[in-house]
Amino acid sequence: MAKITPRTLSGFKDFLPKEAVHKENLLHQLIAIFRSFGFLPIETPHLEYAEVLLKQGSDEIQKELYRFKDHGGRDVALRFDLTLPLARYISQHRHEVGIPFKRYAIGNVFRGERAQKGRYREFTQCDFDFIGSDSLVCDAEIVQLICAALESLNVGGFKVFVNHRKILNGIAEIAGVSEKIQDLLRIIDKLDKIGSEGVSAELEKELGLSAKSIQTILELVNLKQTGDAIEFIDSVINRYSSVSLNEGLNELKIFFQILTAANIADKIKIQFSIARGLGYYTGIVYETLLDVLPSIGSVCSGGRYDYLTQNFSEDKLSGVGASIGLDRLLAALDELKLHQQKFCGTLVIVMDSQYFPYGVKVATQLRMQGNVVELYPDIVKLKKSLGYANLHGYDQAAIIGEEEVKEQEFTLKNMQTGEQQRIKLQVK
Amino acid sequence: MAKITPRTLSGFKDFLPKEAVHKENLLHQLIAIFRSFGFLPIETPHLEYAEVLLKQGSDEIQKELYRFKDHGGRDVALRFDLTLPLARYISQHRHEVGIPFKRYAIGNVFRGERAQKGRYREFTQCDFDFIGSDSLVCDAEIVQLICAALESLNVGGFKVFVNHRKILNGIAEIAGVSEKIQDLLRIIDKLDKIGSEGVSAELEKELGLSAKSIQTILELVNLKQTGDAIEFIDSVINRYSSVSLNEGLNELKIFFQILTAANIADKIKIQFSIARGLGYYTGIVYETLLDVLPSIGSVCSGGRYDYLTQNFSEDKLSGVGASIGLDRLLAALDELKLHQQKFCGTLVIVMDSQYFPYGVKVATQLRMQGNVVELYPDIVKLKKSLGYANLHGYDQAAIIGEEEVKEQEFTLKNMQTGEQQRIKLQVK
Repeated sequence: MAKITPRTLSGFKDFLPKEAVHKENLLHQLIAIFRSFGFLPIETPHLEYAEVLLKQGSDEIQKELYRFKDHGGRDVALRFDLTLPLARYISQHRHEVGIPFKRYAIGNVFRGERAQKGRYREFTQCDFDFIGSDSLVCDAEIVQLICAALESLNVGGFKVFVNHRKILNGIAEIAGVSEKIQDLLRIIDKLDKIGSEGVSAELEKELGLSAKSIQTILELVNLKQTGDAIEFIDSVINRYSSVSLNEGLNELKIFFQILTAANIADKIKIQFSIARGLGYYTGIVYETLLDVLPSIGSVCSGGRYDYLTQNFSEDKLSGVGASIGLDRLLAALDELKLHQQKFCGTLVIVMDSQYFPYGVKVATQLRMQGNVVELYPDIVKLKKSLGYANLHGYDQAAIIGEEEVKEQEFTLKNMQTGEQQRIKLQVK
Repeated sequence: MAKITPRTLSGFKDFLPKEAVHKENLLHQLIAIFRSFGFLPIETPHLEYAEVLLKQGSDEIQKELYRFKDHGGRDVALRFDLTLPLARYISQHRHEVGIPFKRYAIGNVFRGERAQKGRYREFTQCDFDFIGSDSLVCDAEIVQLICAALESLNVGGFKVFVNHRKILNGIAEIAGVSEKIQDLLRIIDKLDKIGSEGVSAELEKELGLSAKSIQTILELVNLKQTGDAIEFIDSVINRYSSVSLNEGLNELKIFFQILTAANIADKIKIQFSIARGLGYYTGIVYETLLDVLPSIGSVCSGGRYDYLTQNFSEDKLSGVGASIGLDRLLAALDELKLHQQKFCGTLVIVMDSQYFPYGVKVATQLRMQGNVVELYPDIVKLKKSLGYANLHGYDQAAIIGEEEVKEQEFTLKNMQTGEQQRIKLQVK
């Protein structure tokens, strides 16, 4: 029979056990944080009517959609994010779940992007959103979750950089370029990458702005919060006058009062050049950088959006939420060697197949003491089974030969030091 | 703008938070068991080259495949189980992961079946397999996992019914119908549903067997283990003579010696009519029924298969594994009202928006004590926010008004009894 070459599709990835266990541990820690704030999980299908996914998302994302006809001739597609399915879900189940609605969702999404190193066509998203309340308490809570999550992961220091869409609108107003706001946001967002000069050049070349407008914009987006956030906000309110700017700043002020009560205000920094989300976000937005690895980019981003359900209903339903960059966080934990404390476990090895029932007793005894315990299933040279123990990171081996069985004991070997001791079997 | 009807595809399902949290809790418990036996997770893509999925699986499953051309014109399909991706994975990564290889996999699979009540086109499978060893220790370990899993879920009593493919081959030998083994297995598998008379009628009508052959077959498949398994095995060995039958029985004997050492032999019963898996399984097979809900069918089934990687390589790699019927288990837990002990949590309610920062302090204090704590984000009538607390099953509400803030306290209300007490705020 002709054999098939075992291979994954280009841009798709198998997780080896070591990677998969890190991911599972990470998600487990995140879920505990989500739950402690009263967020609950939901699940939606991987496959949706294409129309559910078509109206939003950039042209690029639309081109990348895995879209096909199903057995019934329906026009269907694999989801490319968890936000559009959420919009469909909340429109459909609004009365079953109740408002306000707090959910997290962890699931895979699909984008037929050009294959690039480190970018996959299927990847896991981890989103948490607070739907149906305009209260700034929700915005603050999402940031509390981000801080609690990163603290529980122990990745060292981090900063959440925040901005407000209305502040950006205000900057455009002050510079007299409100009608070009979308392009302005796109260019401002590059400040970190191309610097003030780069931004200045693009504003002149692409938008034809005057030197004065450009100067005003750069002055504002380069304002840095040095001391206390509320003092900084007040100083900006006193210096510039714009309705939008002031609205945005006043909302940030209330937001910071809550963060101060939550004792995390020192981790949050205002930065007027954060312009992510463009058309989508309508309120406070944020990005999160790790102090030791800022180069990997934001590990958690999000913000407030007012038009979640607009494709499905006339009812406005606003939300605020964020998405954790799992791949980036996993890469960071890897680089910082912070994955899971040392693995502890015991490999039970028997020297003759007649001792397997005895080996099972020993394994059961050790497992009941809370250990991870594996019984090596074959009779091989001790060197080979000890090699297996090393490969899998077991820190102990329990070795069982004739003498051990006779004495109803087992030999426990420390895999690191090589020390051995005899232990009595306790179970019958 | 025209609105889209929010709907899922026929045969696909949204999980409401209550269902999703039960599923997450269940998986969490299962994962702890898998890990304690040294099994580790792997992940494979939802989408594979169609050829990887085409060679195995019944014709019916092939017709149900979600298969399409991707952006690069590749012939791709959504996986319909986790076994064929495992076969591809182990063929591809054999040297990276090492043999023997123990993995669990939890993931969604897709089958475009005709829509029926309680059957979905996308559903979650939960598989655990022990690859690359012929030792009966592995077979016994898979059954240990099943028992440990069901015990941890606390679903009451259960029985694992076991058989051996070689015993079924032996029965066919003794009845002189070895060449019709596949049809024989298919009909025997119906014994529970259609009884001895039904099976007898089908054996006569479909296979044209003689009355004597039918009698022998029925006598054997109806043999019931009453007392000790090993005594039962010995009694059958003494009564019938067939090479296959004896091989199967002798393997079951070793298997039971290990189960006895693991102290679970009393949960396992031999039953010669278990004929699941047909062509696929080659050794010991099993099904698991709950004592109180046998009608829902097997909640965990599996067995040994010798030709896992045959589509990809000439190397034989045998495995033994089982699959947990998550939907059935969830339905059982639901019916038995065994889902998660009572939920405990506190909803924090503030009576005026200026108290939100204070409310965040109270919420943080309660959360640090290990509680699930939610802060209601809006200012509404107390009746409405208390209704929300009831809807979400919170057993306490922490209410904060002017007086509480003045005294740096909060009022803790027991949602069941209505009792209230004042508690001091401890954090600053």
